[in-house]
Amino acid sequence: MCGIVGYVGSEEASSILLEALRKLEYRGYDSAGIALVDEHKSLQIRKIKGRLSNLELLVQQKPIAGKCGIAHTRWATHGEPSDLNSHPHTDVSQSIAVVHNGIIENHAQLRAWLEKHQVTFASQTDSEVIAHLIDFHYNGDLLLAVTETVKRLEGSYAIAVACSQHPQLLVVARKDSPLVIGRAENFTMLASDVPPLLSHTRGVQYLEDLEVATLTQHEVHIYNLDGDEIEREIQTIDWDMEAAEKCGFEHFMLKEICEQPKALRDTLRARYKDGSLSFPVQIENLLENCKHLLITGCGTAYHAAMVASYVIEQVAGLPVEVLVASELRYRPHIRKEGEVCLLISQSGETADTIASLRLLKELGIPTIALTNVVGCTLSREADWVLYTQAGPEIAVASTKAFTTQLLSLFTIASLIAKQERSGLLEALDQLPGKTQLLIDRQEDIQRFAASQFNKTKVFFMGRLVDFAISLESALKLKEISYTHSEAFAAGELKHGPIALVDTSTLVVALCTQPSLYAKMDSNIKEVKARGATALVITFEDVHTFDDTADAIFRLPQTHPLFSPVLSVIVSQLYAYYCSVLKGNDPDKPRNLAKSVTVE
Amino acid sequence: MCGIVGYVGSEEASSILLEALRKLEYRGYDSAGIALVDEHKSLQIRKIKGRLSNLELLVQQKPIAGKCGIAHTRWATHGEPSDLNSHPHTDVSQSIAVVHNGIIENHAQLRAWLEKHQVTFASQTDSEVIAHLIDFHYNGDLLLAVTETVKRLEGSYAIAVACSQHPQLLVVARKDSPLVIGRAENFTMLASDVPPLLSHTRGVQYLEDLEVATLTQHEVHIYNLDGDEIEREIQTIDWDMEAAEKCGFEHFMLKEICEQPKALRDTLRARYKDGSLSFPVQIENLLENCKHLLITGCGTAYHAAMVASYVIEQVAGLPVEVLVASELRYRPHIRKEGEVCLLISQSGETADTIASLRLLKELGIPTIALTNVVGCTLSREADWVLYTQAGPEIAVASTKAFTTQLLSLFTIASLIAKQERSGLLEALDQLPGKTQLLIDRQEDIQRFAASQFNKTKVFFMGRLVDFAISLESALKLKEISYTHSEAFAAGELKHGPIALVDTSTLVVALCTQPSLYAKMDSNIKEVKARGATALVITFEDVHTFDDTADAIFRLPQTHPLFSPVLSVIVSQLYAYYCSVLKGNDPDKPRNLAKSVTVE
Repeated sequence: MCGIVGYVGSEEASSILLEALRKLEYRGYDSAGIALVDEHKSLQIRKIKGRLSNLELLVQQKPIAGKCGIAHTRWATHGEPSDLNSHPHTDVSQSIAVVHNGIIENHAQLRAWLEKHQVTFASQTDSEVIAHLIDFHYNGDLLLAVTETVKRLEGSYAIAVACSQHPQLLVVARKDSPLVIGRAENFTMLASDVPPLLSHTRGVQYLEDLEVATLTQHEVHIYNLDGDEIEREIQTIDWDMEAAEKCGFEHFMLKEICEQPKALRDTLRARYKDGSLSFPVQIENLLENCKHLLITGCGTAYHAAMVASYVIEQVAGLPVEVLVASELRYRPHIRKEGEVCLLISQSGETADTIASLRLLKELGIPTIALTNVVGCTLSREADWVLYTQAGPEIAVASTKAFTTQLLSLFTIASLIAKQERSGLLEALDQLPGKTQLLIDRQEDIQRFAASQFNKTKVFFMGRLVDFAISLESALKLKEISYTHSEAFAAGELKHGPIALVDTSTLVVALCTQPSLYAKMDSNIKEVKARGATALVITFEDVHTFDDTADAIFRLPQTHPLFSPVLSVIVSQLYAYYCSVLKGNDPDKPRNLAKSVTVE
Repeated sequence: MCGIVGYVGSEEASSILLEALRKLEYRGYDSAGIALVDEHKSLQIRKIKGRLSNLELLVQQKPIAGKCGIAHTRWATHGEPSDLNSHPHTDVSQSIAVVHNGIIENHAQLRAWLEKHQVTFASQTDSEVIAHLIDFHYNGDLLLAVTETVKRLEGSYAIAVACSQHPQLLVVARKDSPLVIGRAENFTMLASDVPPLLSHTRGVQYLEDLEVATLTQHEVHIYNLDGDEIEREIQTIDWDMEAAEKCGFEHFMLKEICEQPKALRDTLRARYKDGSLSFPVQIENLLENCKHLLITGCGTAYHAAMVASYVIEQVAGLPVEVLVASELRYRPHIRKEGEVCLLISQSGETADTIASLRLLKELGIPTIALTNVVGCTLSREADWVLYTQAGPEIAVASTKAFTTQLLSLFTIASLIAKQERSGLLEALDQLPGKTQLLIDRQEDIQRFAASQFNKTKVFFMGRLVDFAISLESALKLKEISYTHSEAFAAGELKHGPIALVDTSTLVVALCTQPSLYAKMDSNIKEVKARGATALVITFEDVHTFDDTADAIFRLPQTHPLFSPVLSVIVSQLYAYYCSVLKGNDPDKPRNLAKSVTVE
């Protein structure tokens, strides 16, 4: 969950690498570091605990020079955030520097082995073993030393290595963690993700698992672990960098919430043209012949899968099974006839989702990826891929990626619908416009948040799709406002959780399913009888809750099964304003990273 | 979720009814009331907010007389707990008294209609409409008035009616809420459940849905709503009342935790004899031919279903679907080939589980009930029934009912196991004895609770069966210690919830699946890096966590899939001691009732 970058070329690397790190800071920000090799074969390192700005200050105070180097922004997995645990790590003689993203699972055994060989360790990280192992295997050939080292590593890694003996060479390797190489006329770069490369070049090469590569100013050579060279084409990226800036919004999260009408329109346009659905014909065949749909993902993507299971079962009569990817991959999998698996991940780099994909592929189950990032691991390894058109999502708390996932899933439900399709399509067509109506009323939510943000307990409750959105709403509030929030299937509250309800509790009741209004009204009365404050989210023109709720937020009318795209926007805005009111940075919640590339 | 009782006979009813209420207090205890009719045709009522002891005091201060009467212990659903909202409710002239368990869904319309007819209401309850409607229809025939009234009611009810004009008559009716009639030589009683009857008689008649009955000292007549009389046999109950007392334990909950070795032995003995499994042959056939097993329940029973899904899929290769009953009943149900449904409820009176049963039966799906209460609605309506042998469970937080459900489910898994059965059976046979080893070490858990009970946040995490037990553990702690506790699939923590982790957090990691020790160790390191205290629950002889955990509780070795029966006992004891240390009454958590007979 760390970010790594590297540069080798004709210019001073320091400011290029720091600017590149800035673009990756969403991947982790508890410490940062940089290492450069200069033409006099001197390796210099600056590293420090805390946000990237600390490192920038340090480099300003103690400048370093060199046209070849690597840098790192860290999200701790082994060893607390500290100066010593920051990357780059070095060997004992400080001639080899390594940055690493991933987890070395056999680090304890390797560390013990190295200590037997008189190696002294400087940090508590799993990553440091890599630097010492490279040193152990180094006899003038850095590529060979790295290749021999990675053969001994278990776990996941994207690593980049600089060495004082090679002022114009970087060596990289990967397994189960992403690594992209950027190509241009006068330099070569590397990064964990595409954004840091975009202001420099559009030409990229993706390193695959168990490959090692040498990077020099003009050349890149990729090898497998047997030393055979591998050809890899240079692809062109056409992302718009404008989209990755804040455009006057105070935070990326608010910007991304407000971008949802456009993101949804773009996503819909890819699947719905001239009044009818448009899918790649193989995917259409696969889905239409599917007898059992398995959907998996982690966190927010898992909640999208839950919504989809209700909607697809309801409109298409197709049985849908939903599993958290980190659970799926360790369960025995019982194959069902006509089974197809859909895997959802915004980044397409979520480690558990990728592991699930590989497991299912081994079993011969057809796989479809639903992701937001072109060229991501998931998109490259799945049999088929569908893209959401949300554009880059920078804020850690997912918003537009989630609603565009929902919309994509609704198009799938409509595709295989057994009931009359035109009503569904009409509702889908109008959905992006309806989200705009909600966003135009964000001040109502801001006002409500201002009156409630100090509540110490917030419970979300609902039934069916409203329960899935309750889970997503509680997660959003946890992530950025650090409030104790939890979601309950409304019928479950009385089986225990209601013991927690008292006058310090805000209960948000999601009530978008007309046949369940009366049941929900009873549940709301029960929590109100224990002193809770109740906010009801329902459609306009519904008056069941008028005498029960303390406050009501009304959604524009749509097909009740598609309500999640609307109701979740209320929760996103509520979480955002609570976070801001509490003085937090909603874009960078503590302890979290944007894409979870470790397990 | 209220409790109702009634008596008509040769003795003063007051003390008999209060003693009977005491046996039902687990059904609700926010207010209580009693109404008696004496030989002078005078109806007198005492009712008051709070525990039953308040009512006993009130009756002591202002005694009432009569050999015919009804009484009620309430758990609020409509209207806050108060003297006025307490039952019995009466008509305007105070000549008819009604006690009611259930929810009248059309109470608002009925209230409006009655108000148009100049009826003034005394309370905010849904129940009061019943008394006024009976008065409206009364012309000297109480049976007819009640029959006409219930025809107008929508929702669920068990009601008992007394009238000043009838000093030796009670009329009762039910729909979707339990009601039992007790028969003896010199009196007739009624109650929501069997225990209040047991010290007076063993002969009972069960009233069915949409039936009305007249009760006099020597006779009971049961009718349908068309006025046709119905024959109903008198059944004999053989429960042991000794079992319903505390036997020197400070609380029922601790007593019931400690009874688990015996409850498990009794439950196992019913299914496992002379070294082989013993099931009713029809159930054995049904399960062996099952191709898709659906399991449902609410709260704790749902967690048992989750555990079962992992175990049965693993050992039997049978696909298992698990749904919360309150969700299942409102989802469209897609029938699968060879589908069988197992419904779990300790009381067998859980409203949502019963509703799910009826829905599935209508679809023609074979149903098996797993319950602890002989003669309960679930047992009477399901196609087949399996009983746990936990004995009466009085504490609201379920303990021995849960572990006996687990054991029963493990016997089912073993029955249909595709892998070698003898190893499973051997492990099952030893399981009750292993729980005794844990209970003998309860002081270790008490000591740990004493050091941690003030933690404001407690997170449980685990994978697979350990995740299901994490959910159950968090629920237990919520219910009786009112602590913010929540459970996470360990792989999901990094997708948001870890933002909540800080130095005030206790993380309990359940680690009983050997192949996942390394993954769990990484997850524990991640929460520890954010300042959390970590308790690990694992097997004896496991040393993976020795350097990571702040404390380790070691379980006796068993088959890893059967670990839930052991690990949950640690959580039960932890929750119990936290509750006691915080000064709560673990037997009677605020806001909760034992069996949730409303939706």
